[in-house]
Amino acid sequence: MNEFEIIEKFFKQSYPSSKGDLALGIGDDAAIINVPHDSELVMSMDTLVSGVHFFDDATPEDIAFKSLAVNLSDIAAMGASPRWITLSLTMPEKDIVWIEKFSSSFNKLAEEYSLILIGGDLSKGPLSITIQAHGTNPKGKSLRRSGANAGDLIYVTGNLGAAAYALRHIQDSVLFPAPTEIEIQRLNCPVPRIRTGTVLRDIATSCIDISDGLLADLGHILNASKVGAEVKLSDIPCSDSLKKIDRELALELALTGGDDYELCFTLPSGIPESAIKDLKSICPIYCIGAITNKTSELYFMNEDDERCEINTKAYTHFN
Amino acid sequence: MNEFEIIEKFFKQSYPSSKGDLALGIGDDAAIINVPHDSELVMSMDTLVSGVHFFDDATPEDIAFKSLAVNLSDIAAMGASPRWITLSLTMPEKDIVWIEKFSSSFNKLAEEYSLILIGGDLSKGPLSITIQAHGTNPKGKSLRRSGANAGDLIYVTGNLGAAAYALRHIQDSVLFPAPTEIEIQRLNCPVPRIRTGTVLRDIATSCIDISDGLLADLGHILNASKVGAEVKLSDIPCSDSLKKIDRELALELALTGGDDYELCFTLPSGIPESAIKDLKSICPIYCIGAITNKTSELYFMNEDDERCEINTKAYTHFN
Repeated sequence: MNEFEIIEKFFKQSYPSSKGDLALGIGDDAAIINVPHDSELVMSMDTLVSGVHFFDDATPEDIAFKSLAVNLSDIAAMGASPRWITLSLTMPEKDIVWIEKFSSSFNKLAEEYSLILIGGDLSKGPLSITIQAHGTNPKGKSLRRSGANAGDLIYVTGNLGAAAYALRHIQDSVLFPAPTEIEIQRLNCPVPRIRTGTVLRDIATSCIDISDGLLADLGHILNASKVGAEVKLSDIPCSDSLKKIDRELALELALTGGDDYELCFTLPSGIPESAIKDLKSICPIYCIGAITNKTSELYFMNEDDERCEINTKAYTHFN
Repeated sequence: MNEFEIIEKFFKQSYPSSKGDLALGIGDDAAIINVPHDSELVMSMDTLVSGVHFFDDATPEDIAFKSLAVNLSDIAAMGASPRWITLSLTMPEKDIVWIEKFSSSFNKLAEEYSLILIGGDLSKGPLSITIQAHGTNPKGKSLRRSGANAGDLIYVTGNLGAAAYALRHIQDSVLFPAPTEIEIQRLNCPVPRIRTGTVLRDIATSCIDISDGLLADLGHILNASKVGAEVKLSDIPCSDSLKKIDRELALELALTGGDDYELCFTLPSGIPESAIKDLKSICPIYCIGAITNKTSELYFMNEDDERCEINTKAYTHFN
C-alpha cells in the first residue's frame, strides 16, 4: 500500500454528505474552498512531536485525538466554527495497524465537529503530526487577545492543572499520587471548548486558549490589550488532585503547568446575568479577577484582597 | 530568547505595507483572512524532514528555500496566485544562528512573491519543516488534474531529471559525474513555476506539478481525468547531464527521479499559436505527447512512433 492508497483507504472521509463550501478535497495538488462572502477564515497550525508533546509509547488513538484537539482549541479561542483540516503525518515506517488506529480516532473526532479533512502529507521520518485547522466566523466577529478593557471581568472555563498533574504523576508518583481518570483523560484527550467559543464570540471582549499555562496566556491577553489584571488566587478553579497537594505546588501546576486547553476570556462587567447563565449551561466558568489599566502588570491577590507574590515561571518551548 | 521572541524577531515581516485581505497575522491563537468574494482559496501542505527530503548537512538557507518552493509549486500547479503561508518549524535546539539564516532565506523568497507569513508553530524535536501555502484564484478558475480530454496535447515546462541527477551524483560520483551548477541549484533551490501557472489557468485543461516524477504525476492526471496518453520518449526534455549518461538510466531519472517541480499540463489541440508563444516567453515548454481516450493507459512511443516498453517504477514514500 503506497501513500496515495493509505490516504484513500484511511483518511478519505465519506461525511458530511454535502461538501458545502468545499470545492475540491483530497486528491489534487491543493484543496479548494469557497469561503462564504459574509464569513472570515480563521486558521491555526500546531505540531506535536513524539517524545516532546506526547510519550513515545502513547497510543495512536490518543495521539490522533490530542493532535486534532489542541488545534481545535485554538479555533475555539477565536470563537470560530471549525470547518476544514489539513494533516501532515510523518512516521518512521508504514505501520498499517498504527495508521488504522490513528485514522479511526482522528476521523471520529473530526466527524463529531463535522470537520472535513481536505489535504495534507504523509512522509517518512520521526513520528510527528502537524495539523492546520480552519474555521469560519461571521465577518469581524472573531475573538482576539487584544480586546480586553479595564474593568472587564476575567473568566476561565473548567478547571486548571489536570493535565499537568497527570504528567507529573508519571514523572514522580510519590510526590504526585495517582490522578483521577478525568485528569488522565485531560492529558491524553483534551476536549476543545468549541461550543463555548461560539457563544463567547457575541459577548466576550478577548479570549485565548490556555496551552502554556494561565500565567503565560493571560499575559498574552494583557500585552495584546495593553491592560493589566488582578487575579484572586483562591478563585482559580483547580483540578481535584491539586487540592490534595502542597498549595504552592498546586498553584504552580494551575498557573504554569499548561496543556489545559481551557479558555481564558474577558467579559464586560455589566454583562447580563442571563448571558452568564447561558454560558454556564454549556460548561463551568469561573470569574478569577478583573482587568486593570496598568499595562501588562499582573497582580495576584490573597483571600484578604492583598497583593501577594508567586514564585513561578511560565513555560515556553525553548526556555 | 523564547519562541515568541524568536518569531517576533526573525519571522514577523514588515512587508507588504498593506495587509490587504489579511485581517490578523502572527500573534494570536489563529490568523484571520478575508478571502475576496470573487476568489476561491487554494491550500496545500507539505513537510520536509531532515535526512529524508534533504541531507542532514544541508544549509539552513537551502532548507528554507526548498521547503517554501515545493509548496509554492503546488499552488502554481493550481494556476493560483500565492498569498499567505503558515510555517511549523521543529528543531532539536534553539540555534539562533541557524534560525537567522533560515528565516533570512525564507523571508527573501516569500517577499519575492509578496507572500505573508500569517502563523505557525515553533517546537522542539527532530529537524522538520511543514508549510501550508494559501493562494487565490478567480472563482472556478483553479486548474485541476481532472480536466484533460482526449486529443489534448501534453506539455512540460523546463526540463526533467536535474535534481535527480544531482542527487545521484552525491550517492555515486563515478556513474554520475559532476552535475552542472544549475542542476545542483535545481536540487537545493527549485524555482516554482508561479507565473506560468497563472497564465495556464486561462487556457490549460489540467495541470500537476512534477514532484514524484513525470511517470507518476502524469499518471495522476490520467486517473483523475479518466483518459490515457501517448508520450514520445525523444520529446521529453532532459537536463544536460542526462544527455551524457546511458540512455535507459537517463530516462529513468527523467521519468521517475522526481523533485523536478516543473509543471505537466494539457492544452486543447486547437489552441492558438499566440498562446503557446506567450507561454514560451515566460519559460521553455515542450509538447511531449497527446491525451487518448484509453482510461489510465500510458504508452511511450519511440522515434518511429511505435509503442515501446520502459522498465521503471514511480517513486512513492512508502514503497
